[in-house]
Amino acid sequence: MIELTLNNLENFTRGAAFLGTGGGGDPYIGKLMLKHQLEKGKIIKILSPDEINDNFLVCNVLSMGAPTVFVEKVPNGPATLHGLRKVEEIIGKKFDAIMPIEAGGVNATIPLVVSALSGLPVIDADGMGRAFPELQMVTYNVGDVDINPIVAINDFMETAVFKARNSSSGEWLARAVCVRMGGICQMACYPMTGKQIKDTAIHNTIKLSFDIGKKIQDARNQKKDPTDAVIDYMKMSNPSRFGKVLFLGKVTDLLRETVNGFTKGTLRLKSLLNEDELLVEFQNEFLYAKSNDKILAMVPDLICALDSESGEPITTDGLRYGQRIKIVSISVPPVMRTKKALDLFGPKAFGLEFNYIPLEKL
Amino acid sequence: MIELTLNNLENFTRGAAFLGTGGGGDPYIGKLMLKHQLEKGKIIKILSPDEINDNFLVCNVLSMGAPTVFVEKVPNGPATLHGLRKVEEIIGKKFDAIMPIEAGGVNATIPLVVSALSGLPVIDADGMGRAFPELQMVTYNVGDVDINPIVAINDFMETAVFKARNSSSGEWLARAVCVRMGGICQMACYPMTGKQIKDTAIHNTIKLSFDIGKKIQDARNQKKDPTDAVIDYMKMSNPSRFGKVLFLGKVTDLLRETVNGFTKGTLRLKSLLNEDELLVEFQNEFLYAKSNDKILAMVPDLICALDSESGEPITTDGLRYGQRIKIVSISVPPVMRTKKALDLFGPKAFGLEFNYIPLEKL
Repeated sequence: MIELTLNNLENFTRGAAFLGTGGGGDPYIGKLMLKHQLEKGKIIKILSPDEINDNFLVCNVLSMGAPTVFVEKVPNGPATLHGLRKVEEIIGKKFDAIMPIEAGGVNATIPLVVSALSGLPVIDADGMGRAFPELQMVTYNVGDVDINPIVAINDFMETAVFKARNSSSGEWLARAVCVRMGGICQMACYPMTGKQIKDTAIHNTIKLSFDIGKKIQDARNQKKDPTDAVIDYMKMSNPSRFGKVLFLGKVTDLLRETVNGFTKGTLRLKSLLNEDELLVEFQNEFLYAKSNDKILAMVPDLICALDSESGEPITTDGLRYGQRIKIVSISVPPVMRTKKALDLFGPKAFGLEFNYIPLEKL
Repeated sequence: MIELTLNNLENFTRGAAFLGTGGGGDPYIGKLMLKHQLEKGKIIKILSPDEINDNFLVCNVLSMGAPTVFVEKVPNGPATLHGLRKVEEIIGKKFDAIMPIEAGGVNATIPLVVSALSGLPVIDADGMGRAFPELQMVTYNVGDVDINPIVAINDFMETAVFKARNSSSGEWLARAVCVRMGGICQMACYPMTGKQIKDTAIHNTIKLSFDIGKKIQDARNQKKDPTDAVIDYMKMSNPSRFGKVLFLGKVTDLLRETVNGFTKGTLRLKSLLNEDELLVEFQNEFLYAKSNDKILAMVPDLICALDSESGEPITTDGLRYGQRIKIVSISVPPVMRTKKALDLFGPKAFGLEFNYIPLEKL
């Protein structure tokens, strides 16, 4: 059990921004929401999957939308809780806990806000081990977890409840409503048992965020390089994660559009060391990085943009011309590299034309 | 009480096509669906609003989408019935009958198909007295009928259930899902009591379709002009309806696009009598007709396109270059010309920049 406090909050949101791999929305908003709750004296408890029973009933809660919209029209905790209650009403059962669908960005913080509002604990596991832009891109689908019912809700407490034939269709239908709700909506979906979490979720990713955030802070305090500190830490985690700095450069060009409920675009960097250039394409999250026609990293491996000095993660909605950035890549655990997992969130799932090659082999 | 039979079916669908004012989808499809049911021996009973109790519970059922899509991806009766059952499940009550939301086009026939499948009678009343393209454009809103719950369902029996803050927002959200369901979905919404039907619906519009269809057929049999026959009949109906032929011409140009779940475009005709030209703009239904910069008729008054010889109504999806057409306009009843009604479906409600002028004054 971990407890979120005002002391460890900043480390947590920094780590969540790192795992957001550019997307998931600026966790600054989530930090403010959580700070507000903690200052009111609310308790936010985080349980590891091995601390819960197999018949524990848990719901995923999240904000859907384009990160560029999140900064103007912020997620709404009470609406998300209302969405959770709607799922309970439909399935006729009460939830024992809530969980994040993704480990990165604002969506790492939303379940903690709902926890403060409801008193329910949060399970330290998620469906992506990072952030991905679409609802079906979860390891739950490597198992056989039903996404239904899918509840979407907006600030007016208008609801749309979907029963979709599969999670891709759920994404397709819900995204259209999300756009019409103003580019953001609060959601509750994928009700799961403790057994399903143990079998299909990526475990202890909230703990991982705390640790990454702390490693970056500690390195700063010790005048060490924060990026190296994170890469070293990931290497020693279990399973060991391979990481490397792909590029050190300055933002020379940025195309960023809010399209069909996503933030899509390309980032171009010029090296601070030589004449090389880097291209990074994104759909909410960074999808791949390419230099001199050679791909350096691709989904589902993590591609993260960090401030070259402070190591602070930069989200796609926070990118600006002239920023000096380190692009870092970290490998994902083996469970996220199986054929079934790559079908869900490998390069082809994003419409990219190349096959997945692990970071270590590039 | 009227009963739909194989004998009066063709008159009914022809009349419904007339009241479709170009939109509502080709009733040929509805005719085939109903023929299929009647040939199986199904009984389809139609009750007048004055034959039902105030506490009768009735649901509106319809197909949402662009008429251009309906001809390729036809409405699905069993799915519509499933939508009706879903509304019953949500409100926890059984319906005594069903009713059409609009009197024109395919949506005049859908409730009759659902009647055949369910055994429920159909109430001879609707919310538009013609066809309109959007969910909130109903006289129910002149009263205070709640559109919720709104159920949208597709051929895969995937469902989206909306609780919207008002009918315009319900239209806005449901339309997006309709587009993602392939440009058509089956719907059930506006659950109403007998009292609400008596107070807010347009009455006996199914009977009107039967009569219009029969007048056209009788005139043909008697070698009379079918258009004149309809105009004469409408004049003698109660309340008396003013009608006139606006134009006799040949289709010289047609722009027709399927946009955001609607069929939108413009029709241009050249007179068969002189050098005049006519422009008719449509959003599923014909919105206004203009010649020599003078508007000849506008919503909510009916604008209908009839084959110049046979008097057969032509829907916007059936328009072709070179067709010889009579454009006819018929006034709507006074209840559809009040300030509140015009706010719902007058020219401004369609984004047109002119104020409503009744047909008789143009």
